[in-house]
Parts: sequence; C-alpha cells; structure tokens
Amino acid sequence: MMNDLMTIIRQRYSEREPFDSNRQVPTADVEKILEGARWAPTSHNMQNFEIVVVDDERLLNRLGNLNTIPSPEFIRENFEQLSMTEKELAQKKVGILGTQFPPAWQDKAQLESAIKERMPLNLGRLINGAPTILILLYDTRKRAPASPGDLLGAVSLGAVMENMWLVAQSLDIGFQILSMFGSPVQKEVKKIMGIPDHMAVLFAIRLGYPFTRSEALRVRRETDSFAHRNEYGTMDK
Amino acid sequence: MMNDLMTIIRQRYSEREPFDSNRQVPTADVEKILEGARWAPTSHNMQNFEIVVVDDERLLNRLGNLNTIPSPEFIRENFEQLSMTEKELAQKKVGILGTQFPPAWQDKAQLESAIKERMPLNLGRLINGAPTILILLYDTRKRAPASPGDLLGAVSLGAVMENMWLVAQSLDIGFQILSMFGSPVQKEVKKIMGIPDHMAVLFAIRLGYPFTRSEALRVRRETDSFAHRNEYGTMDK
Repeated sequence: MMNDLMTIIRQRYSEREPFDSNRQVPTADVEKILEGARWAPTSHNMQNFEIVVVDDERLLNRLGNLNTIPSPEFIRENFEQLSMTEKELAQKKVGILGTQFPPAWQDKAQLESAIKERMPLNLGRLINGAPTILILLYDTRKRAPASPGDLLGAVSLGAVMENMWLVAQSLDIGFQILSMFGSPVQKEVKKIMGIPDHMAVLFAIRLGYPFTRSEALRVRRETDSFAHRNEYGTMDK
Repeated sequence: MMNDLMTIIRQRYSEREPFDSNRQVPTADVEKILEGARWAPTSHNMQNFEIVVVDDERLLNRLGNLNTIPSPEFIRENFEQLSMTEKELAQKKVGILGTQFPPAWQDKAQLESAIKERMPLNLGRLINGAPTILILLYDTRKRAPASPGDLLGAVSLGAVMENMWLVAQSLDIGFQILSMFGSPVQKEVKKIMGIPDHMAVLFAIRLGYPFTRSEALRVRRETDSFAHRNEYGTMDK
C-alpha cells in the first residue's frame, strides 16, 4: 500500500522549490490539513493555536513586499548546522546542506563580513510562488500546567505542525516551514492580518505544487545512534 | 480504508487505563515507533533528541519506586483546564475532564488545602502496568538558529512525539504521555538510567495494551473557531 502511514512519514519532506502560483491548493485539501491540526494532541488539550489561511493574491503580495533581515545570530548558528557537500552530509547524518544559502554564509572565513554586509530578505522570496500560506499562531496567554517556559505548549505546536505536514504529504502538496515569519517582521505581518497582540506568529507554512520536486538529500541518524535500551549508552556504539 | 492517515489522526488518543503488564509490546513494533521518531522533521535537521526504551522489569520497578510531588503551580494551573462534567466539556471543546484527578483538585474551594495536604505521587502509579516506557530526552546543547528559548527546538520534539504516537495508534498500541517524568524527579530518573547532564527528560511515554479501552470524551474546537481566512477573525464568529 503506497499510502500507508510509515511511507508518508518517511516521504514527508521540506519542499524548497518555487511553487506554481497559478495552481491553487483545493479548498477541500486545505480543510483536510486544518482537520489534521484540529485533532493534534496538545498539552491538557489547551488547543493553544490558531491558523490564518492566506490565499488572497493581494494579501500575499502585501506580505511578500515586507522585508526582514536575518540576525547575526541566525547566520552564525545556521553555519554550525551546515554540510558543504552531499558526501559530508551523508556522513554526518545531521544538519542540512549549505548550498541552499549564499556562498558567504557557507564559508567560516567570510561569515563575519557576510553578517556586516547582509541584505534585507524579501518575504516574497520565501513565499516563492505559493498560492496559499498558513500562518501558525500560538496563544501566549495559555500555558501547560507548571511547564517552565511553556515547553509542553511548544511541543504541542509541533504535534499540530506534524499532523498538517503528514496530511499535506499524503495529498502530494508541497510544504515548507518559513521560520522567518516568526522573526521581528511578525509585528508587520500581524498588523496586515489584524492579529491581536496575545497571538504570536510561530512560523508560516507555504503550500503548493513545485514545477519540479526538490531533490535535496535527506539524512537521519540510524536508530541505534539515538535509541538506548534500558540504560543510556547501551545502543550507542 | 480503516487505516488511512486521517482515520489514524482522528482516532489517536491518550490511553489512561492500566496496561496488562504481562502483554509485551513486540520489539518489531517498538522499532516501528522509533522509525517514526527517526524521520520526524526537526529544526535545521538538528535531531535534538534521544530515546531510552525501558522494558526491563527490574528497571521499571526501580523507576516505579520513585516518588515525585505535584507542585502547587501544577495543581492550580491544572484546575484551570478542567471541566467537571462531560456536558460541560462538550460545550467548552477545550481542556480535559476533572474526574481523572482527586476530588479536592476539582473543587476551587478545596484547592489550597489540597495543595497543603498533597501526597507524593509514585511513578509506578503513572506507569500503571506498562511493559515498556519510552523516555524522550532532548539535547540542551542544541538550539535552532536564533530561536529564543529554543522554541523551534521544542516544536521539533512535538513532531517527534506525534510521529511516534501515530505509529503506535496505527498498530493499536496504547500510548500516554507521562509529563511528571520531566518534573524535578528527572534527576533521580537520570541517575538510574545513566543519562548525562546535557540530556533533559521531556517526558516518558507509556506503551501497552489496556484491559479495557479508555472511553474518555475527546473534544476539539470546530475548524471555524481556530482557522481564519486571510484576515484574522473572519472565520471566528
């Protein structure tokens, strides 16, 4: 069975390619994705999220005209996660490929000058043709009982996200997290959408159909290197 | 098709009933659950988690002999999420049923005396017959680039959790989050398991087969009350 859960889980990926802006995501499919979010587990069933579905072209353009600027911190910490070749990534089994970032971001020697010379980033470049984006908001007034920093509330949002992602994957809809929407630019995003102060932007999700599929190498640690039986370290050779 | 993704997503639930301690979770099924965790998306593919599978009876007993004590904060904040009847819960569509907690925890007037008189809680009562528990650890040395408080790292852990939960549900394995393992008692848990300082306990998960299934009412907001189209508030009547 092609569409069994494990296949969907294994095939789910982050679509980095441009989407065909003329190919709409069917409303019924967006509804299914929202239904996935709806039934996600949240700590104490708080349901500490709201979702804004943006598919109005003028509104997408207004958001797309906003600029944000990657923080020095982002560029430095991003660098730590990079492999410069597919071979290196395949060996490391953790992190991402550097080639999706500007060349200067991939070079330790150039990093500080890249930070000095960094340019504003246009949100339109991130949306990249998506006919629909979802803005995932979380309610800062809610908190999982006695969870410091609302750690369990944040974990809940991950369950919401993953349910949506799996549903999208099962429907063959491209899906990518745009974490820059959660950056300082969220103030302007919230103003455009009329989002109240107590709701914070976690990130946006771009949905759509790529002209060609992303073929980025996907890597994971082997189960034996993260799972331990009974005593920590026993499966970790 | 009984086992399609949406059905699994809708049927997934928290099993609160005791498990049959004589009915083991097959190793192959535990492997499938770990495989689900393995392919979960994490921010920048950090894979900021480790999982300890505990199925040794002596070790489960040692953990089960530990005591923790619910914090005043937990009892107070837990109360805020409670409905006292199924009818009330069905109307609220958010939160959980109070009847799973001690009577004094369900009564505003008795709350402060319940806090004063609260008893240590035995971890064995939480494990409640589970032949296998998973302890989900997160690596405090890792952080999603420029994510304050590692919010995106915590979201990633939610995706890991949800993948495991859906796989367990698809295999008809009972699953419950035991968040008390992430409380101060985690120091003792870590000592028993030999877990290093930099790995923190997020929570434990009990796996197994209940004698009878939990029939707790499950409620969710309607999609229209959390989803908004283009402008915040437009779907929210």
